[in-house]
Parts: sequence; C-alpha cells; structure tokens
Amino acid sequence: MSLFEKHQPTLTKAIEVLHARTFYAAFPEHPAPAVYGETADADGQAKFKNTLGKEFGELMQAGESGWAGQEESPYLQEPLNVRYPIFSTDDLITKSKSAFHVWRKVSKEERAGILLESLDRLKRRFFEIAYATMHTTGQGYMMAFQASGPHAADRALEAIAAGYEELSRFPKAALWDKPMGKFNLQINKEWRAVPKGISLVIGCSTFPTWNSVTGIYGSLMTGNTVLVKPHPGAILPIAIFVAEIQNVLAENNFDPHICQLAVDTFEKMISKELAEHSEVKLIDFTGNSLFGSYLEALPGKTVFTEKTGVNSVILDSADDLDKVAANLAFSVNLYSGQMCTAPQNFFIPETGIKTSSGAATFDQFAEKFVANLNSLIDNPKAGPFVLGAVQNKKTCDRVVEAEKLPGKVWLKSRSFENPMFKKARVATPVVVEVDASKKEIFSKELFGPIALLIKTKNTDQSIALAQEMAIQHGAISCGAYTTDPEVKDKIADAMSLAATPVSFNLTGGIYMNQNAAFSDFHVTGGNPSGNASFTNPEYVTRRFTWVGHREPVKA
Amino acid sequence: MSLFEKHQPTLTKAIEVLHARTFYAAFPEHPAPAVYGETADADGQAKFKNTLGKEFGELMQAGESGWAGQEESPYLQEPLNVRYPIFSTDDLITKSKSAFHVWRKVSKEERAGILLESLDRLKRRFFEIAYATMHTTGQGYMMAFQASGPHAADRALEAIAAGYEELSRFPKAALWDKPMGKFNLQINKEWRAVPKGISLVIGCSTFPTWNSVTGIYGSLMTGNTVLVKPHPGAILPIAIFVAEIQNVLAENNFDPHICQLAVDTFEKMISKELAEHSEVKLIDFTGNSLFGSYLEALPGKTVFTEKTGVNSVILDSADDLDKVAANLAFSVNLYSGQMCTAPQNFFIPETGIKTSSGAATFDQFAEKFVANLNSLIDNPKAGPFVLGAVQNKKTCDRVVEAEKLPGKVWLKSRSFENPMFKKARVATPVVVEVDASKKEIFSKELFGPIALLIKTKNTDQSIALAQEMAIQHGAISCGAYTTDPEVKDKIADAMSLAATPVSFNLTGGIYMNQNAAFSDFHVTGGNPSGNASFTNPEYVTRRFTWVGHREPVKA
Repeated sequence: MSLFEKHQPTLTKAIEVLHARTFYAAFPEHPAPAVYGETADADGQAKFKNTLGKEFGELMQAGESGWAGQEESPYLQEPLNVRYPIFSTDDLITKSKSAFHVWRKVSKEERAGILLESLDRLKRRFFEIAYATMHTTGQGYMMAFQASGPHAADRALEAIAAGYEELSRFPKAALWDKPMGKFNLQINKEWRAVPKGISLVIGCSTFPTWNSVTGIYGSLMTGNTVLVKPHPGAILPIAIFVAEIQNVLAENNFDPHICQLAVDTFEKMISKELAEHSEVKLIDFTGNSLFGSYLEALPGKTVFTEKTGVNSVILDSADDLDKVAANLAFSVNLYSGQMCTAPQNFFIPETGIKTSSGAATFDQFAEKFVANLNSLIDNPKAGPFVLGAVQNKKTCDRVVEAEKLPGKVWLKSRSFENPMFKKARVATPVVVEVDASKKEIFSKELFGPIALLIKTKNTDQSIALAQEMAIQHGAISCGAYTTDPEVKDKIADAMSLAATPVSFNLTGGIYMNQNAAFSDFHVTGGNPSGNASFTNPEYVTRRFTWVGHREPVKA
Repeated sequence: MSLFEKHQPTLTKAIEVLHARTFYAAFPEHPAPAVYGETADADGQAKFKNTLGKEFGELMQAGESGWAGQEESPYLQEPLNVRYPIFSTDDLITKSKSAFHVWRKVSKEERAGILLESLDRLKRRFFEIAYATMHTTGQGYMMAFQASGPHAADRALEAIAAGYEELSRFPKAALWDKPMGKFNLQINKEWRAVPKGISLVIGCSTFPTWNSVTGIYGSLMTGNTVLVKPHPGAILPIAIFVAEIQNVLAENNFDPHICQLAVDTFEKMISKELAEHSEVKLIDFTGNSLFGSYLEALPGKTVFTEKTGVNSVILDSADDLDKVAANLAFSVNLYSGQMCTAPQNFFIPETGIKTSSGAATFDQFAEKFVANLNSLIDNPKAGPFVLGAVQNKKTCDRVVEAEKLPGKVWLKSRSFENPMFKKARVATPVVVEVDASKKEIFSKELFGPIALLIKTKNTDQSIALAQEMAIQHGAISCGAYTTDPEVKDKIADAMSLAATPVSFNLTGGIYMNQNAAFSDFHVTGGNPSGNASFTNPEYVTRRFTWVGHREPVKA
C-alpha cells in the first residue's frame, strides 16, 4: 500500500470538511494517555531533556559552516544550549534549487502521501514538541501541547488538503473540439500546475510550529522546496518537524533538502538575505508589521504575511455579565496576552453595559473584569498554567510602561509564583482605563498582557472605533457582546468591512483567541494585520501557476 | 422569471466548461446574418456613424465638469469627435462608494442575473461595437467583431462564472459541533464573502473591451463597484459596455453608478490619481510594463496586470515547413503584430530546421517566411483585412527603426492600399536576422509588426533563450515546431518553468496569438508579462475576503 493509499481516508475527510467547515480534528487535542500512550508524556519529556546541551543531530543536512543555538527557557531563564548546524545562504539555495527539480515532478498523490506520513510520525513526538515549545515560547503545558502538536498538525493537514484540491481543480488534459462549420478544429490541450520554486518560511518566537506549518506544508504540497527559517529564540519545535519531514523523504528515496532548516543567530540574521535572493519566489512570514510590510513590497515575490493587529472587544449588552467578565479575563490571561488573537481594546459605553438586571456601569464592569483576572491568577491550580511565561523580556518592559499611560490603572501587573518553575519570567495583565478621545494610545498593538478599557459615548462609537482600528492598524480577532439583534447585525457588518471575524457572546470554555482548522479562516488577509489567510483557496493557489500547452490533433 | 433564472442555464454551462476546459462559446463568433439578423451589420454601422461628432449621451452619470474625446480612426486618420462626460476624481469616488454599500449587499444570484442580462443586451450591439473598435484600434473588421464582441463577452461570462463559483465555495452558515467528552461545544458559524470596495479597470488602446471586461465583470460579480478608465484613444467600444450595464442596473432599480465610465484626455490622465486614491482597493491594468509595475508596487491594493512580453517561436523540426511558414506569417501579419500574443523572436538553429525531406537551412526558412508574409500582404482580398491599421503612430516609427538593427534585413516594412480606407495608417512586417549572441537586441518587446530571425547554435540554445526571455522579460505566448517527442517534452518543461503556454506545431487556421475563453489561461501570472490570468480562481478570489463570524448556540 502506498503512503497515499494509507492516508487517503484522512485526506478525503479533510477536503470534505474544508468545504463543510464543520468540526474536524484529525489529531486529538487532549494529551490523554488513552490516545497517545501511557508513557508518552514521560518519554517525550525525557527525550526533550536529552536534546538539551547537545548538537541537534537529526537533520539530514551536511556541509554546515558551524553550529549555533541561542534558545533560552522563559521558565528557567537559562539557555537550552541546543546547537543547530549553520549553512551559508548560497549552500541552502543551491541545494534547494537542485531538490526543486526533483520535487516539482513528483505527483500530487505521492507528495500528499509523504507529507501526511510525516504528520503521522510527528504525532508520536507531540509531547517532546510540547516541552520544546514550553521552554522556548513560555507557553503553558496544555497550550504548548495543543498549539504546537495536534492543532498545528490539523492546520498542516488543512494546507495539504487545500493544496491537493487546487492541484486537482483542472484536468491534466482535454480535447478542445470546436465546430467550424464544415469541419471541427481539434486541439489537444494539457495543463500543468507549475510550482513557483524555493519557498522561505520565516517563523516567530511565540508559535514556532502553528504559524509555520501551513506555509511549509502548503508550499511542499504544491511542489515547491522549502527553507524553514525559525526565530532564533524558538527553533527546536519546528526543527523536529523538519527532521521528520526529511526522514520520510529520505525513506522514500527523495532528497531531504526538499525541506531544509535554515537556522541563524540574533547577531547574524539571514532572513533578509534569503528573502531578497532571486531564487526565492515564495515567502511566508509571521512577525512584526515593519518587517512584514518590507517583505510584502519585495518585487517578484509571492508573500504571505501575518503581522500585528489591534484586537477589539465591543461590550454593548449581555445576559450575564459575570460570565462575560470571566470569559474575557481568561482570554487576556491566556499565555499572558502573547497571542496574535488576544483582545487589547475593550470598548465600553459611558452609559454602561445593558444586562437583564439593568445596566452595569463602566466601573462595575471594570471591577468585575479585574476580579476575574485576579481570581484566575491567584488560583494556584490554574493561574500559572494559563498565564505561562513571557517569551521576550521586552514584553515585561512594555507591561510596566503601560502602567504609566494617562488613565486610571485598574490593575497593575505583578509577579506570581509558578510552583514548578520558580525562576519563570512572568507578568500578569495590566488594565488601564482610557478615554475614547485618546486614540493615539490605543491605535497600536501593545503586545503582551495589556488591556485597555476604553470609555465610549455609546455602542455606535465603540463599533466605529473597533472598525477604524481594524481598517487602519489591522485586527485578527474581535469579541462582541450584545443581546440586541440589530446591534449584532451592525457589528457583524461593520467588522466584515474591516475583514475581521467576530466572536459573539462567548462565555464558558470557548475564547475569542482560538481559531480552529477547517473552519475558522485565521487572519482574513483583508486588513493590515496580514495579507493571507489559513487556509483559503488562494493561500495555496498562489504557490503555483497554471500553464497550458496545446497541439492540434493529427489529421 | 428573474434575470438569474433566465440566464441560469448559460451560467451552469459556463461553470461546467470552466472546469472541463473543453470548447464553449456562448456568443457565436461569426457575424452571420443567420445568427445576428439580416440587417444587424448595416444597422450597427449606421448606429456607429450616428454616434460620431456628438456627445455620447447613453451614460447615466450626471454632474460632469465638461465633455472631451480625442479618439481618432487609424483607418481615416481623422478624429471621431465623440465627446464623453468628464468627472472629477472626487465625484467618481464619492458616487462609487455610495453605490458600493448597495451593491455589496446584493445576492450573488441577483448580481449574476444583472450581469448576464447586460451581456445579452450587448449581443445586439456587437456590430456597432465592431465598428467602434475598428475606428479606434485599427483592427480589421473580423477581429474587431470577434475580439470586442463575442470573444470579449465569453471572457466576461467566464469571469462571472468563476466569480459565482468562488462565492459559492463555502457555506453561508454551519453548525460547528465539537465533542468535549461530557458535552458538545456547539457554535453557529457564518461566512461572508466581503467585496474589497472600489475597483479601477484601466483599459488599453488595442483591445479596449477584450482586455477590460474580465476585470469589470469579475469585480462586479464579487460585489465591488467599478470605475472603467479607458485609454483616451479607445473609449467608444467599452463606453457601450458600460452604458448597457448601467441600463440593466437602472431597470432593476439599482444605482447605475455601480459601474461608471471615467474618461480622461491625453493631456490630463487620471489613472494615477484614481489608482492612488485610498478608496480604490482593486486595480486591473493592461498596458506598458513601466506603469504596470508601478501599480503592482502600490501598497494596500490588489492589482491585476497584463503588461508586455517577448514572445518566442522555437523552430526545431516540422513535417511541412511551408505550412509552418504560412501559419507564422499569418500570426505576424495579424493586426500588424499589435497583439500581446504576437510572436517576435524566431529561434532557428544555424544547422537548419529538420523536415521529412531533409533539413531546410536558416536562409531557406527565412525566404519561405518572407514569401508567405508577402503573399498574404499582396492578396488584396485578404491582406488589408488581416493587417488592419496601426493604432499608434509610434508603432510605425518603431518599425522603421527596426530596419536599422545590426543584421540582415530580410523584409522591409512597406505600405499597401486598403481598398476601403485609402488614408489608413498601415505598416507591414519588418523581418531582421539577428545573431543569438546579440541578446540586447531581442531582450525587449518591439511592439508592432517586427519579426527577428535569431540564429542559434542548436535547438537547446533556442529553448534556453526562449526560456530566459520569458523569465527575465515576460512572455504571453510561445510557438514551437518539433516532430521529436523528446524535444517537445524539453520545450514544454522549460517553458512551463517560465510560466509560458506553448502552442505546438500549429498549422492551418489556428494561431498562437489566439486564446480561447474557458480553456486557455490568458497570461499565466507567473512571469513578468503580468501578475494575473484570465480566468483562474485567484483572478476572482482576490476581489473579496472571506470573513467568518461565530456565536455559541444558546443552551
């Protein structure tokens, strides 16, 4: 049985749900022993620990110019001392180009089989990847497992499915038979989906696999070779992905350089050198807006970006404001606000939030929100695990700076003790009240656990400001609470025009930060937060070109 | 019966062939009285003549700041004196923005119905459009009828079909039902295809409808409002399209400003002002590479370009070289080489072209080619109608310049008499021999009837040069003649990598210049000749954004 046949049921199901957009998860999100094995967690942790302080020897890439690695654990505030091979740009490009001329000719079935098999292999390494993710990004254990393991694998599967479907969109050949009156003009036509070439995937420090695998698998599925350039602070999780892809390639007698890891250091970043190289045709990037916009403007490249945004919550009315406050407090605490989908700007009318038991004032909501934040932070069985650690020290500085904003500080950021990691770099949310007139304060992303409670005249102004922020500065998510169908329609319409998905009236165990594969288009591509979306059709169609050749049928 | 129901069979068929890529023409290409009516031609000509020297009064656009029109007939070398209303950019944008908020909410069925009805109305005006096209572009009668009438309408239908299909790609709503162990998390999700806003379509002087209608109909189908900015030298044909779209809109109680004509003059071009306007989100452009590349680099815009290319013919071997020479001579003579798909660089090995009766030398082929050009030019019943007239005087200058190129001039450009238009601006092809080493000569588009016979070492060099030209300078078409399957594969592969479609071994009544709707992707988007393709999925998907909203199911 070929790898394609082995994985065909999964692929078929994935394509089906890609259209139906109903629930589907090929990789169970709970690290349950029943699913992943009784010793999987312990084994994964042991394997992770055994990687530390050594050269990462799993890659099938030779000829390195040296070894380097600068990852630090936000939990231990100590270097991991994992070293990765370093390659010159010329070496990476030369090998990628050579591998391209092999990979581009491989059938879509064979490509899909290999890529799906690599995900199957990775499933066995989800725990190891989880620990690698914790100790590079600072994510809590559960998020690290889910986001870097099963959720990332589902997103990768989604990209494979979308790519496979688009490659199947048009026939390989057809007879074009045109009646000309006395005779028919008959032309044999054929169409090829021609991959664009070398694809560069530039990773970020907070979601090293989830944000990169769609680009990697999307490009590989459509026949491109890939250079994976991780953030120097978060290499190990995606290095394991690349290693497994190379394993499956080599086992099937393909050049492992079809997918290479291109590690660099903080002192000598190679992103620009790679991105500007004439042989690099595709670029995927997650990160800051400045570098993302520079990449988007590079001539002759097809570029997919996820940059930064200013995410809003519009508070108009609610059945139960306690549940609302609890839900939003979780969203802000989750991974200490270091998600691209975390809410920042909370728009609350000065007349308060309507509830079934009368209007709650601005201050009443602020108090409830702060109380819920504190209660989660101070719950030793939940808080430390939800908040995790802070990836970058600069985020801690930004949180401290936020306390100096001109407005009432409802909650100061503080430290807390992580029972497992005493030296963890942590920061709890800061909450500041800002007047709607002070647009300069809330018109930019304040990355990290920073929540601004913005007092507006009314919900119409809240909507207008949320829309304006998204159109001008980008937005990846939006929360809205209203019990009024007319207000709901107004919000849905206004935010649609700002290309921002709205989560309405979330309470309980579902949060505006979460985007599910096969259903939620992550980043729409329609506002400044990014120019691409996981995974809409053009996310894969732009990775190749349809070229048709033709020849008359011989008489 | 709604307009959608009326035209649904056509739409269904169009979507079907868009995938099958077999022959389909919704609009018969022959101006046969049996199809279009006994008096259609005479009526159309009379209507065209009645338009001359007057204000074009068909548009439903008021508030003009003046009237202007500078079109000249290349056949008469006289101004048409048709005047069009001129509007300020602010006025055009304000009205388009207001109309957008109506049009974006119209269902895809209703939009499709209106647009298909407009094509039905235009069918009755194909002859009038043909004469308008002849006397602005210089195209011969048959090409003017086909390209601006039925072929353009087929391309428009193709864009409507592709847009309709993409808008139907994902469900309007779905229940996302996630098993959580003891309960299910149920979320109602909905997805909206949100149009991007105002779409600017900038036309060219040689194919004023064929090259513009796909952008116009593609944008309108996906809910955008459109500003049609024709080339000041070729307004009338597309003005008739806009007038008919406005007619159908108004009859159905829609704001006719959903599609506006935005005329300018050579002295005061408004393309840049419109393109750079913050409210303009989409730009379609056909024309020179310099302006096209400027548009592509505008930040925050989605841009579709067809620029210039250097089209090659690779001559390796042939069954019957006379038929080859005849076919290529027709391709070069056709509309005096003013098609973006016309061949320019003919790569011929110094060892000659292999045929069933031995190798024909380079010189023998050159002689045959020149003889075929002359024989068509000198045939008074065919030549003048195939060659047509020259749109732009600069093209005639370029042809004269080409005679000074360093190489043997196999054929000088000359004049000929058009029996119907004694004052027509005409130019027959110039044919110059160039050595393969003189790359600087053939590395650019020499727009017009200019053919370069390039002597190469062998077919491998011919292929390498054709590929290099396409990758470096763009190519929209490629012709190749070979009887060797291995050489054919090599050419097909090499030109695929240059994203250039190849027409193999064309003889008889089919030419490399021709691209058919529903089957041939016109301009692939994968080389510098343009960044978009008629009509691949992304040609329409990039005109709107998928945005998903969600809300938990109430308990």
